[in-house]
Amino acid sequence: MIQTHGYAAPNPTTNPQPFDFEHRDLRPNDVHIEIEFCGICHSDIHQARDEWGGSIYPMVPGHEIVGTVKAVGASVTKYKVGDKAAVGCMVDSCRECASCKDGDEQYCTNGGMTPTYNGKGRDGAPTFGGYATDIVVDENYVLSVPEGLDLAGAAPLLCAGITTYSPLKHWKAGPGKKIGIVGLGGLGHMGLKFSHAFGAETVLFTTSANKIEDGKKLGADAVVLTKEENWHAPHAGTFDFILDCVSAEHDINPYLNLLKRDAVYCTVGLPEDPFQVAGFSIIGRRYMTGSMIGGIAETQEMLNFCAEKGIVSDIEMTSFEKLEEAWTRVVKADVKYRFVLDCKELKK
Amino acid sequence: MIQTHGYAAPNPTTNPQPFDFEHRDLRPNDVHIEIEFCGICHSDIHQARDEWGGSIYPMVPGHEIVGTVKAVGASVTKYKVGDKAAVGCMVDSCRECASCKDGDEQYCTNGGMTPTYNGKGRDGAPTFGGYATDIVVDENYVLSVPEGLDLAGAAPLLCAGITTYSPLKHWKAGPGKKIGIVGLGGLGHMGLKFSHAFGAETVLFTTSANKIEDGKKLGADAVVLTKEENWHAPHAGTFDFILDCVSAEHDINPYLNLLKRDAVYCTVGLPEDPFQVAGFSIIGRRYMTGSMIGGIAETQEMLNFCAEKGIVSDIEMTSFEKLEEAWTRVVKADVKYRFVLDCKELKK
Repeated sequence: MIQTHGYAAPNPTTNPQPFDFEHRDLRPNDVHIEIEFCGICHSDIHQARDEWGGSIYPMVPGHEIVGTVKAVGASVTKYKVGDKAAVGCMVDSCRECASCKDGDEQYCTNGGMTPTYNGKGRDGAPTFGGYATDIVVDENYVLSVPEGLDLAGAAPLLCAGITTYSPLKHWKAGPGKKIGIVGLGGLGHMGLKFSHAFGAETVLFTTSANKIEDGKKLGADAVVLTKEENWHAPHAGTFDFILDCVSAEHDINPYLNLLKRDAVYCTVGLPEDPFQVAGFSIIGRRYMTGSMIGGIAETQEMLNFCAEKGIVSDIEMTSFEKLEEAWTRVVKADVKYRFVLDCKELKK
Repeated sequence: MIQTHGYAAPNPTTNPQPFDFEHRDLRPNDVHIEIEFCGICHSDIHQARDEWGGSIYPMVPGHEIVGTVKAVGASVTKYKVGDKAAVGCMVDSCRECASCKDGDEQYCTNGGMTPTYNGKGRDGAPTFGGYATDIVVDENYVLSVPEGLDLAGAAPLLCAGITTYSPLKHWKAGPGKKIGIVGLGGLGHMGLKFSHAFGAETVLFTTSANKIEDGKKLGADAVVLTKEENWHAPHAGTFDFILDCVSAEHDINPYLNLLKRDAVYCTVGLPEDPFQVAGFSIIGRRYMTGSMIGGIAETQEMLNFCAEKGIVSDIEMTSFEKLEEAWTRVVKADVKYRFVLDCKELKK
């Protein structure tokens, strides 16, 4: 077994504490990665605090993982020792259902994909995430980190990155398209970068006047302040796609009315309460939908695209010592735009 | 001017009364139709009672109109005296916007299409509908009734028919597809007929055990009683498209979970209150959307399809004398499945 040191939440009301555990010995297709960096995602906190229910303890959070391959199983062909590698939100899926076969493993219909932490593998063993020194993952669920990508800045690509890349790509953000990004946080800032890099006319919607400058720097051609009266009127019926990155409750009907006929409004923010969707907001074949991360091949495509375009997440480095403070600031949305933990410090 | 006799609601609280009015003299492109039958649509009642706001009085309702061409303007090429013709929910649109050019005139973005009644034409004159002896409409918004279609049964095709045909066609109901129809009323019964005629596996969802037999006769391969416990479990993730024909408030989340990845849930029932859409119900790129009638060319295609397949609406004939009773029964959903008025009686 592979001795691992990390941080785990022991129960819903205690923040992560130092925790020693073991990863399985390498199976033929396993890759053992020594973790260098792990991003902090809001869902780490939701799950550690059991806010979505069904949490498994002790829980080692973290699904924005980058590091170096330390060892590989006998049958591994895709990775070798020393490679830079990454792990995102899933470490397995059934590989047989239509979703898995289509490369949409995140929507595996055969019991669902296996989450990187707070899940159980095929053997029934709990999965442990990236707030740790090491991880062991089947090579088919490991990503290659292309040369030239800053490793720490690349970590959040594995969740915040693919979560925004996948829908923007799926609904064809690109030249000649008018794309809206709602909310400027960890997800929204990646959404702006990708939409801009795809060549689309990109409009940021935000409630905060103090985000206008940042929004423009990150790729917005225009920023709409949604606290101003009649903010929506000039944009009615003009958008090809809107990506909603807001996790707090908000009224989406004014945004739905900005869509062209046959255009799509997609949430990746997943507020707790249901959306209130007026019939008249969607009646012109305007679509309301939701997207979750992306498939493995698409995640690799995204990393390659980021390397080619020089895109990483804007990050603030933090440490395990300051984890509580970092989590508190994530909950307050007080970070530009993603915290990253340096997992190498756990080796000391 | 063309002297016309009909029934009009004088205000929101009085049911339609006998009413004499005039239609314009024929413009070069106008068709004068002597109305034979007009279906009763629930929206006649909503609008007569100003339940959607902005109603114009006196209001002559009716947008499921079939009759015989009595005269044509000098430039009319599509119709001649004696032709069987029909008029649906719109009598004009801008003809220049992207929606109009795409044949989606119902989604005209240039001020919206001109409704057959309770609207105003280009000249500012109010439009009057089919509860009358005659109507005058630009030939481009008149439909041809193919030979062999029962005229009275064809009347509801102009609203209930196209409202269900258009989305089923747009989202590709056909062989190999599993299609859901929610609710068996005026819309739902046409949805069943079309989905079945398109060759799709068709499942009716209803709360009423006494609709099972009718549902099967109308084209359902299976009927799911949604009052039974766990009714949704066997169908999770299996539907290619679901058409929601219910106008009363209802929880759509269990239905959204019946959709495959990338599949669509479309409302045509338009309840007054907003839909409550849980983020987790749509996250697998499941779409929630809404559709409204169909374009002119598509409506003609639908009528031709109906003639070819021998499809008409199941109707109950009624009379202007019994109009109040008919409206009361429509509100109670107590009709199988559409009332039709014989407008020829107004000539007497």
